[in-house]
Amino acid sequence: MIYLRIGEIIKSKDKFAITAHLSPDGDSIGSMLGLYNALKESGKSVDMFIDDNLPYKYSFLPGFNDIKGIENVEGRYSCLFVLDSGDADRTGRCKELIKVSDTVVNIDHHITNNLFGDLNIVDTNSSSVGEMIYQLLKLNGFEISKNVAMCLYTSILTDTGGFKYSNTTSMTFSIAGDLINTGINFTDIYSKVYDVKTLPQVRLMSKVTSTLEMALDNKLALMSLNKEMLEECNASEEDAGEFVNIARDIDSVEVAVFIKELSNGLCRVSLRSKEYIDVRKIAEKFGGGGHIRAAGCTIKGSMTDVKNHIISEVQKAMEGMQ
Amino acid sequence: MIYLRIGEIIKSKDKFAITAHLSPDGDSIGSMLGLYNALKESGKSVDMFIDDNLPYKYSFLPGFNDIKGIENVEGRYSCLFVLDSGDADRTGRCKELIKVSDTVVNIDHHITNNLFGDLNIVDTNSSSVGEMIYQLLKLNGFEISKNVAMCLYTSILTDTGGFKYSNTTSMTFSIAGDLINTGINFTDIYSKVYDVKTLPQVRLMSKVTSTLEMALDNKLALMSLNKEMLEECNASEEDAGEFVNIARDIDSVEVAVFIKELSNGLCRVSLRSKEYIDVRKIAEKFGGGGHIRAAGCTIKGSMTDVKNHIISEVQKAMEGMQ
Repeated sequence: MIYLRIGEIIKSKDKFAITAHLSPDGDSIGSMLGLYNALKESGKSVDMFIDDNLPYKYSFLPGFNDIKGIENVEGRYSCLFVLDSGDADRTGRCKELIKVSDTVVNIDHHITNNLFGDLNIVDTNSSSVGEMIYQLLKLNGFEISKNVAMCLYTSILTDTGGFKYSNTTSMTFSIAGDLINTGINFTDIYSKVYDVKTLPQVRLMSKVTSTLEMALDNKLALMSLNKEMLEECNASEEDAGEFVNIARDIDSVEVAVFIKELSNGLCRVSLRSKEYIDVRKIAEKFGGGGHIRAAGCTIKGSMTDVKNHIISEVQKAMEGMQ
Repeated sequence: MIYLRIGEIIKSKDKFAITAHLSPDGDSIGSMLGLYNALKESGKSVDMFIDDNLPYKYSFLPGFNDIKGIENVEGRYSCLFVLDSGDADRTGRCKELIKVSDTVVNIDHHITNNLFGDLNIVDTNSSSVGEMIYQLLKLNGFEISKNVAMCLYTSILTDTGGFKYSNTTSMTFSIAGDLINTGINFTDIYSKVYDVKTLPQVRLMSKVTSTLEMALDNKLALMSLNKEMLEECNASEEDAGEFVNIARDIDSVEVAVFIKELSNGLCRVSLRSKEYIDVRKIAEKFGGGGHIRAAGCTIKGSMTDVKNHIISEVQKAMEGMQ
């Protein structure tokens, strides 16, 4: 049983390193910190490395400030854990850790994982690496402390979108129940992860939603963003990340479109659909791509031209359904 | 064991009625429909009554269209279930059902319940009545069908705010896991309950957030709403129900204020705080009240006057904390 073999390695060794992927998210940070706190609490020496900026919203997690950049590696590690990463390159320059580590343990839940470790646990049925770290710790008799539980709960919460994505299983719920029984303030974790917005984000959302236009009998919703709005709100493009969902969530809407003016005469278009329109096909007409319900493309032309092109293509797609 | 006694009653009787409280929510509708579907599937005759309009967003639940108004009562019932209601008056005119029912079973989780039934199960540790109906059905050997699971999942999901409120327990998670194992499309339930917005709601949100003003070193956020905005968006006041949270969720904000112009010279003020300001005390200064973190009051004066009054009182409260 590979979880127990890894438990033996943990017991027999001392100097550990943990790393995870670039653009770190709640699962990579939460699972890394969960494992870190458990190892530290059992008296081990552990270093954590991520080759990227860390999202500030996870800074409440115990151990967050101990995560280092790869330039801080010194000496060798007896065991390296690589978490939530389909291949070594996903860790950026942290893949150099593999060369200075005696044993590499790869723990992941992505089906694309290329089994680059000396030991590999890839569980595609697991909602999150946090769930897998929970099992690793439980099966090897580690106590799940409040600090460990906070980190693993954050990992599971974020990778399931608050238990709403289809990767949530009865095992996910069972582990979440066990974690909250440690007495963690899980309502506070939820607020810190999901409810915090910045002033530029709220200002930008107000401006972007004020551009809302409805077409095709309210089945198509369009919103747009230009450079001036970003400047007026002191915001960045990332602040607009999820705004297209606001248009998609309107009850009458089948297709939602979000148009970002990249420069004069060039627009990036995000398309979302709910039930029956294949937006990938529409994106492909403009040289883009994606999935049936979420796609994107880049179109030359003014904002007005781009809107008209898109309305026309969505109309054709809707007529094709009749 | 009272759950088993109620199971005996279910087995020995045939003609059932179920009712729940006025202003029906996801828990009252979900638990009512969960019990309804289970009883119907076991061959019983069941009628459901609610003395109020039903929220359309729950219309996807099986049995929703069978819920009737109290004017449709005919004849006697061998057993009446009253769900999620602290006392009989909470059911409005449906309390008349008590007179035409042989046995009244009261199932609730509110600490204020006055035990008005012939049999009463009041479990204040239960997140929702849906959790209690689950236990009633399981302990009495009912199969939890997909239809029943959809209803009970909705009940638990809504009364825990998507598993984020502190009433969520490991039992809640355990039951949720069991319910999703029936194969229900729980991601779809989440979308139907939480993601659907109307066009007037989105338009109104855009207008209200565009009024956002920051004060007191960005610790105070104010937003406002007047009659013209409602008219321009074809919206109602209820559409603005949760907007104050948008201002509260801004990272720098301690106090969020939402001012609704009721008529010329009269404003309704909602106050929210995050960590250290007692907004009830501020509301009380204007003849209002509420809780430490959520309070409200009605103030005479123009929008500008009201804003200035509130800024001044919040400033005093913040200075008092230093």
